[in-house]
Amino acid sequence: MSEERTDIASLGEFGLINHLTKNNETRNAGTLLSVGDDAAIIDQFGRQTVITTDMLIEGIHFDLMYTPLKHLGYKAVAVNLSDIYAMFATPTHITVSLGISSRFSVEALDELYEGIYAACNKYNVDLIGGDTCSSQKGLIISITAIGEVAPDKYVTRSGAQQGDLLCVSGDLGAAYIGLQLLEREKKIFLESPGVQPDLQNKTYTIGRILKPEPRADIISWLQEKEIIPTSMIDVSDGLSSEILHLCKNSNTGCVLYEEKIPFHDETKETALEFNIDPTTCALSGGEDYELLFTIRQEDYEKITMSEQISVIGYMTEVNEGAVLLTKGGNKHKLIAQGWNAFDTEKKG
Amino acid sequence: MSEERTDIASLGEFGLINHLTKNNETRNAGTLLSVGDDAAIIDQFGRQTVITTDMLIEGIHFDLMYTPLKHLGYKAVAVNLSDIYAMFATPTHITVSLGISSRFSVEALDELYEGIYAACNKYNVDLIGGDTCSSQKGLIISITAIGEVAPDKYVTRSGAQQGDLLCVSGDLGAAYIGLQLLEREKKIFLESPGVQPDLQNKTYTIGRILKPEPRADIISWLQEKEIIPTSMIDVSDGLSSEILHLCKNSNTGCVLYEEKIPFHDETKETALEFNIDPTTCALSGGEDYELLFTIRQEDYEKITMSEQISVIGYMTEVNEGAVLLTKGGNKHKLIAQGWNAFDTEKKG
Repeated sequence: MSEERTDIASLGEFGLINHLTKNNETRNAGTLLSVGDDAAIIDQFGRQTVITTDMLIEGIHFDLMYTPLKHLGYKAVAVNLSDIYAMFATPTHITVSLGISSRFSVEALDELYEGIYAACNKYNVDLIGGDTCSSQKGLIISITAIGEVAPDKYVTRSGAQQGDLLCVSGDLGAAYIGLQLLEREKKIFLESPGVQPDLQNKTYTIGRILKPEPRADIISWLQEKEIIPTSMIDVSDGLSSEILHLCKNSNTGCVLYEEKIPFHDETKETALEFNIDPTTCALSGGEDYELLFTIRQEDYEKITMSEQISVIGYMTEVNEGAVLLTKGGNKHKLIAQGWNAFDTEKKG
Repeated sequence: MSEERTDIASLGEFGLINHLTKNNETRNAGTLLSVGDDAAIIDQFGRQTVITTDMLIEGIHFDLMYTPLKHLGYKAVAVNLSDIYAMFATPTHITVSLGISSRFSVEALDELYEGIYAACNKYNVDLIGGDTCSSQKGLIISITAIGEVAPDKYVTRSGAQQGDLLCVSGDLGAAYIGLQLLEREKKIFLESPGVQPDLQNKTYTIGRILKPEPRADIISWLQEKEIIPTSMIDVSDGLSSEILHLCKNSNTGCVLYEEKIPFHDETKETALEFNIDPTTCALSGGEDYELLFTIRQEDYEKITMSEQISVIGYMTEVNEGAVLLTKGGNKHKLIAQGWNAFDTEKKG
C-alpha cells in the first residue's frame, strides 16, 4: 500500500466510483454505455444487451436476525432486476456468486436459493452461472443481471429536458419504515427474548423492506401505452439522491412538490408513531425500488390513466437547481442524504 | 434457518454447486449453456454471448501480506478472462464489484484498479460497471466477464471422444511452487522481520502465482491453424481435477503420461528444494491458468508446430477410467485433490 492515505468515507460511494473510473477507457465499438447509469449497454449484433451487478454483504446490507434467507435470496435478485427495468429493458439472465462462512449449513443455502429461484421464476429469468466459495465472515452475495432491449430503445439518466414531468411509480418511504420496525423488534427481542413481536397491521411496510418487487409491470404498461420516458432511474437510495442523479446527468434543475409524493397509509401512520416525517422517509429512506422517470408534457394525459404512477414535479433550467416545494409553500434545496454504502452506522 | 444441518464441507465445492443447481430450470430459448462449464452461453440475435463470474475473498483466495494490490487487480481480471478463453471465445467486457473494509485507503484502491485497467488494456476488454460497498472484514472482489463467440463455435467440457488427444498449454505446477515460496518468506518475515527475502532466481514461479496471464495467444493460434478442440477447460484447480471434469462431462476415460507433463526448469528445481514431487504440483497445485483441451487425432501434425502445446495423453472408453501412467510404468487412478474452496486449511 502507498504512503498517502485518503479515507474512503471522505469521497462517499459515488465520489469513490467517479474517482476509480474517471480514466476508464472503452475499446470495443459495441460498448454503448459504460459505468455511471443503472446498467451498462452493449450492442450485440443488432439487439442490445444490458448488464448490471450488485453486491450484498451481511452486516452491511442485511441482518439475518430478521431477514429470512428465502426473502434475502429473492431480494438479492429483485434489486438487480430493478436496475435492468430502470433501463427500460427486460431481464433475461443472472449469475450468482456466494461467499459463505462455515456457520451456514446446506439447508440454509437451500432456503436462500429457494428465494433466488422464486424471483427467477416470477420474472422469467434464467440463472446461468456463478461461483461459490468460503468467506472469512458472514454471507456475501454478488449477482450480475443481464437483459435485452431493442436497438437504442434503452432509457438513461441523462435524457430529461426542461419542462418534462417528473413521475414516480407506487409509493415511497415504506421500506425505511419497515426497517425501523424490524430494528425496534430486534432491540426488544435482545432485551426481553420472551416478548412476542407486535407487527400486526404492519405487513405492508415490512413486506416492502423484506421482499421488494421490481416494477416490471410499470415498464410493460409504459410500453403498451407507447410512453417512452426521457430519463429513468430506480429508487434505491432515496428520492432526493435519485432526483439529483437525473438532474446532474441530464443537466437540468427540478421542482418537486412535497404534497404530490405518494405514500401508503400504513407508511404515514407508522412514521407518525416513530415521530418521523413521512416526507423524510421518502426523500432519504431508500430501498423502495420504485421507478423515477421523466416524460414529455404531451404524455401527461396518458400517464394519468395509471393509478400506479404519480406526477410529482417537473424539470427546470439547470441554474434553478433541484428544489422541494413544501406543503407550507417554502422552497428547500434538495440534498442527497440517501443511503451511503460507506456510512454503515446509518443503516445498521 | 432450518433444523437440519448439513456441513457445507461435506459436499465440497462441486457437490454444493450441483446440489444448489440441480433443479435449476431455464426459460429463455436463448439460454444455450447454463451452470456447469467455464462459462454460460446466451444466443443473442445471431452471435453468442459468453458469461462467467468469479469471487475472490481476502484470507481465502489471497494474502495481502505478499500480494501487491496492483497484481491482485490484474489477476482478478485474468482468472475471469481465462474462463472466457476456455470456451474458445473472446472476452469483451467486465463488471467489477468490490467489498472494502475501512482499513483500505483510496490510494490502495487506486493500486488495485491500476492492475484491473492494465489487464483490460492488455486483453482489449472494457470495464462497464460494478458496485462498490463496504465490507465488515477484508477485501472482496467479484468480477463478471462477458465475451462473444461465432454461432455454435464455443467449446464445452463435454465434447471429447474416445481416441482424442489430450493437450495442455505452457507448463504446470509453477503457481503452486510460487505460493510455497511466498508462504515460506512470510513465515521467515514474521519470525525475523529483519531478514531480507531470498527470491533471486525464483521470478518465474512467483510471477506465475502473482500475475497469471490467460492464454489468449493459444486460442488465437488454434483459430489461425483451424484446429477446433473437441473439449476445453482452464487449469485453475490442478490438472487432475480438470481432467476428471473433461472425462465426466464427455463420458470418457483418459490416459495421462506422467513423463509428458510440461514443467519449467525453475519449477522442477524448486520443487526438489521443497522435497515435493513436481508431478504432484501439476496434478493438485492449481492456479496455473493454462488451457487443457482435446483434439482429434488428425490434428496431431498441426499441434506439434506449437512449442507452447504439449500432448500429454489421450481419451479412452469411459469404463477404463482416468489413469496416470507413471514414469516407472505403473498405473494410478487419477483423483481430484485440487483446490477445494471450502478447505481453507490447504491453500492458507
